Amino acid sequence: MLVSALLTSVGINSGLCVLFFTLYSILRKQPTNYEVYIPRLIAEGSSKRRSHFNLERLIPSPGWVKRAWKLSEEDLLSTSGLDAVVFMRVITFSLRVFLFAGVIGIFVLLPVNCSGDQLHDIDFADLSNNSLDVFTISNLSSGSKRLWAHFSAVYLVTAFVCYLLYYKDAKKLYKRITHLQSEPNQPQYRHVGFLRHRVDLVDHYGKKLEDIEENMRLERSEVSLATQEVRAAFVSFKSRYGAAVAFHMKQSINPTEWVTELAPEPNDVYWPFFSSSFMRRWLSKIVVIVACILLTILFLIPVLVVQGLTNLNQLEIWFPSLKSILTITFVSQVITGYLPSLILQLFLKIVPPIMEFLSSIQGYICHSDIEKSACNKVLWFTIWNIFFATVFSGSVLYQVSIFLDPKHIPAKLASAVPAQASFFIAYVVTSGWTSTSSELFRIIPLIWSLIRKPFTCCSDEEFEVPSIPYHRDIPRILFFGLLGITYFFLAPLILPFLLVYLCLAYIIYRNQFLNVYAPKYETAGKFWPIVHNSMIFSLVLMQAIAIGLFTLKKLPLASTLIFPLPVLTLLFNEYCRKRFLPNFIAYPAEVLIKRDREDRYDPKMAEFYDNLVAAYQDPALLPIQFSANSDSLNSPLISAAQVRH
Amino acid sequence: MLVSALLTSVGINSGLCVLFFTLYSILRKQPTNYEVYIPRLIAEGSSKRRSHFNLERLIPSPGWVKRAWKLSEEDLLSTSGLDAVVFMRVITFSLRVFLFAGVIGIFVLLPVNCSGDQLHDIDFADLSNNSLDVFTISNLSSGSKRLWAHFSAVYLVTAFVCYLLYYKDAKKLYKRITHLQSEPNQPQYRHVGFLRHRVDLVDHYGKKLEDIEENMRLERSEVSLATQEVRAAFVSFKSRYGAAVAFHMKQSINPTEWVTELAPEPNDVYWPFFSSSFMRRWLSKIVVIVACILLTILFLIPVLVVQGLTNLNQLEIWFPSLKSILTITFVSQVITGYLPSLILQLFLKIVPPIMEFLSSIQGYICHSDIEKSACNKVLWFTIWNIFFATVFSGSVLYQVSIFLDPKHIPAKLASAVPAQASFFIAYVVTSGWTSTSSELFRIIPLIWSLIRKPFTCCSDEEFEVPSIPYHRDIPRILFFGLLGITYFFLAPLILPFLLVYLCLAYIIYRNQFLNVYAPKYETAGKFWPIVHNSMIFSLVLMQAIAIGLFTLKKLPLASTLIFPLPVLTLLFNEYCRKRFLPNFIAYPAEVLIKRDREDRYDPKMAEFYDNLVAAYQDPALLPIQFSANSDSLNSPLISAAQVRH
Repeated sequence: MLVSALLTSVGINSGLCVLFFTLYSILRKQPTNYEVYIPRLIAEGSSKRRSHFNLERLIPSPGWVKRAWKLSEEDLLSTSGLDAVVFMRVITFSLRVFLFAGVIGIFVLLPVNCSGDQLHDIDFADLSNNSLDVFTISNLSSGSKRLWAHFSAVYLVTAFVCYLLYYKDAKKLYKRITHLQSEPNQPQYRHVGFLRHRVDLVDHYGKKLEDIEENMRLERSEVSLATQEVRAAFVSFKSRYGAAVAFHMKQSINPTEWVTELAPEPNDVYWPFFSSSFMRRWLSKIVVIVACILLTILFLIPVLVVQGLTNLNQLEIWFPSLKSILTITFVSQVITGYLPSLILQLFLKIVPPIMEFLSSIQGYICHSDIEKSACNKVLWFTIWNIFFATVFSGSVLYQVSIFLDPKHIPAKLASAVPAQASFFIAYVVTSGWTSTSSELFRIIPLIWSLIRKPFTCCSDEEFEVPSIPYHRDIPRILFFGLLGITYFFLAPLILPFLLVYLCLAYIIYRNQFLNVYAPKYETAGKFWPIVHNSMIFSLVLMQAIAIGLFTLKKLPLASTLIFPLPVLTLLFNEYCRKRFLPNFIAYPAEVLIKRDREDRYDPKMAEFYDNLVAAYQDPALLPIQFSANSDSLNSPLISAAQVRH
Repeated sequence: MLVSALLTSVGINSGLCVLFFTLYSILRKQPTNYEVYIPRLIAEGSSKRRSHFNLERLIPSPGWVKRAWKLSEEDLLSTSGLDAVVFMRVITFSLRVFLFAGVIGIFVLLPVNCSGDQLHDIDFADLSNNSLDVFTISNLSSGSKRLWAHFSAVYLVTAFVCYLLYYKDAKKLYKRITHLQSEPNQPQYRHVGFLRHRVDLVDHYGKKLEDIEENMRLERSEVSLATQEVRAAFVSFKSRYGAAVAFHMKQSINPTEWVTELAPEPNDVYWPFFSSSFMRRWLSKIVVIVACILLTILFLIPVLVVQGLTNLNQLEIWFPSLKSILTITFVSQVITGYLPSLILQLFLKIVPPIMEFLSSIQGYICHSDIEKSACNKVLWFTIWNIFFATVFSGSVLYQVSIFLDPKHIPAKLASAVPAQASFFIAYVVTSGWTSTSSELFRIIPLIWSLIRKPFTCCSDEEFEVPSIPYHRDIPRILFFGLLGITYFFLAPLILPFLLVYLCLAYIIYRNQFLNVYAPKYETAGKFWPIVHNSMIFSLVLMQAIAIGLFTLKKLPLASTLIFPLPVLTLLFNEYCRKRFLPNFIAYPAEVLIKRDREDRYDPKMAEFYDNLVAAYQDPALLPIQFSANSDSLNSPLISAAQVRH
């Protein structure tokens, strides 16, 4: 790819972004679009529908950018919950990493790459006519001493990412979680409710269990008191600590007979699997895993068909009648240049819903677990089907055969990955920039609202505030992070484009959290371990590429000296799993006991007791008019669900 | 290898076994050898030293075989604990598997193999002159329909092993564990003490903690009450349930700060790591893992040097002066035939102590964990350094390269494994038969006792009852199990020899449990998961060989139809991990609460309280005369060790 081609792409996409921003700045002020652009504010009643017309409404204004910029993390936490904080942390984390890598890449590695003479000298007179490869590591000759700059960069960036993962982010986030755990009654959390919920998951106060030791006996008698035997039940406890004990202890001699789980918030419960047996949930999980693997492999077929479109000759053989049309330059350019990536993007759009569906039949009993699992699936699907499918652009079997031959992975990566540098730089610009600005512009909801409007004239009641689909957006950001980490030392030119993307995402998502999305339930930061794992994977992948590349470039010493790096990175990961992961799974006794003691003197407990009785009711068992209400009940009850079969 | 060679080997080893048995039958009756052959009986006072001479002492008698045969499992449990039961179960489990496989192998597969004509026809006139390969699967021609017999055998044996692992063994063993858990006060357990100990691990009654919820606060205050801060402490609880809760719950916000573990029995405590920080124990573990991997790889060097001995020409080049001696047939036969395997056996003898040492610096705080870990290490070391090193008899790098190329593992196994059939048949006869009969004869203790006798004339006090080194014997039996499972359909001739070995082991180990070994501590059946994993690994390895072999023999349909088998086996394993493994790790609330209730009315509790105070004392901190006593204190105290740093 020539520099001019990249510049054209940057130009087109910058134009699109500016267009989207301007349109957004105008359209968001039109009362007819309030439901699309500020549904959250409307629902909270903080913005009123103004029907009178004024000129200001037609002039684009950047006030929203300022508001989004000024939003503090505390405010974000109180209005959108910990998951939103984690989401923004992913963006700021990536920003920090790529600012650091960017300084090294642009001011050290890029000049070093340009000084090489492997390909040809740079034509400074006509910069745009150079191949992009001149700016990559491919331009350095084998055995060049300048490769040690790249070697040092690999070490520096790994150390920096691990440092960030440990100090400024995991530890900080983790402090925030434990801080929230131990300071329960801060009004801002209580007023929104969900964080309070989460902490209160390990909550209680239902039936009068006199002693934790008696749990088992009483539970059993509760069950037998009911005239019929039930397969699953919500059981409430006098104290958070008691609920946590019931959750952590294995209850019965046969561990598959009585299964205890922490109960989700009432509006987070996913009922279909609530009374399923251990065996059914286990089998569902296995079936879904197999389905995911099949889907991931079969998805390569449309990708390959689409890739066939780039081969015009092949197309002419398949459809001889098109021959006359295909000779027109513009048509052929559209077909070979835009159509394939458009079709690919459309195919990718359906992946998050499919993965969410698969996760929903996997046996989880709460929506937040389903979303977390879908997030994981989408992430690995993206890495496999975009990164590896592009890099090794071959058949499924070829790709699988590479991973069945682990000895040669670094060598194959080292030869294939740098070759795709210009593709991925263009990918960041086209897919990244456009996806964020269309997120701001909300094209599909806008079109949907325009279509629906003529049929529903004054339907204020049907209106629903959307929640952000984390399983679609987190994997996307993490995938750009993977691209940045693997390519920063191969093709540092990717970094400025990535930084622009991240800055856009930073402003736009903060704006959307303020105006559009309201959280439906809370995972209490459980997305962070996914982020952590993805970063560690990216680092190890980058190091494997470095090992292969230094071997390829005949610098065996550098290649050998990189070897300890993946080992150290994985050890670091192992340590983090022991140090931080437990707190993402359950709360420590220290915190629970403190909260329990505070609750004893809390005057609001009487109200809490009253709400508890009706909080968990399967909508399928309710009369229809009640089913809507059960969603709006946000009392923070409950504790451990006992599933028996 | 010719049949005659095998027969010679069988003859020599049978002779040795008979000799050992006869010598044992005589020597065990000599009062001077009582300390070698019946130390346990002497220590328990059930056998008195008879100094008067009578003729009966010189006549070999098989009475001990009868006594060993008659020993019931209940008696074994009461005198030698659950670990001994598990050990004998491994043998009976293998016996059942190989009886089943033996019937199929000898009556179906062996005739089928002999009917092949790939190698040459069998010379029925002079059976002993046939090559052993005639009896193996190699004798069947490619594409032969008779291979379907082997295919069916693979399915049948897999199903039978899984059935045994699930019904007659895991479930039975597991019932026994839970049975013991729920029936605490049976006198026979109490009188020996260790099972009672184990169940009472989750025991208590020390300091007066008024409420489980208050654990944390009180523990902290206990610590601060002591004038100096301590890094680790034994904390006792009022109830078993309370101790289990403290163990299962994460205590502090930083999970590496307060670490809780169930306390081992007093005489099982391994003090060196007792006060170590989380970090130090974690680093120790990593260092030991690296050391184990290095040892496993480096061990191939002596193996290869030894294998060089079989090459006489090479030896003559290295040591030209030996040329004249090496021409003597007998000398050359000894050097090429016996010396290499002798040296190899000696090298293998030092592996269990080395692995035990490595496990002891890995950060465990009790001897039983060290032994369990050493058992695992020795098992995988044996599989790697005997099975794979023999099969792929190449360099380390060649072996590693095979495993870095997983796609070709079945094909390489299929060509290499059958070729070593006669070696492993001979290995079962020489190593297996001799090792059990020398276990009975206890050569090294006998020699040691003969050497020591002149110097210590009447030292009855120094005498110590040995405990069985499970980490040496369990891996050996499991390795023969692996050989049997992988070879039963390739070379069914291995099965009769294996059955003889298992019958010998059955009688001899029961005898040794009766007369020689006394348990020092109890792991509560924690060796069984190792056995289970080893069996599953053997099955999957056998199935991989079958896949490769059917491909090699040009029967692709059979090869394809085997594919579901490893998947099903691994799924079965996964299910067993969920169904059975939790009970090998901790006791369920159901059992604990029942026991607690029973304890309330137990009159012996007062005595228990008294013993508790002095039970756990670091021998390093005691005056020397007390350190011996602390071992003999077998009061079943304690609960959760709190390690802080």
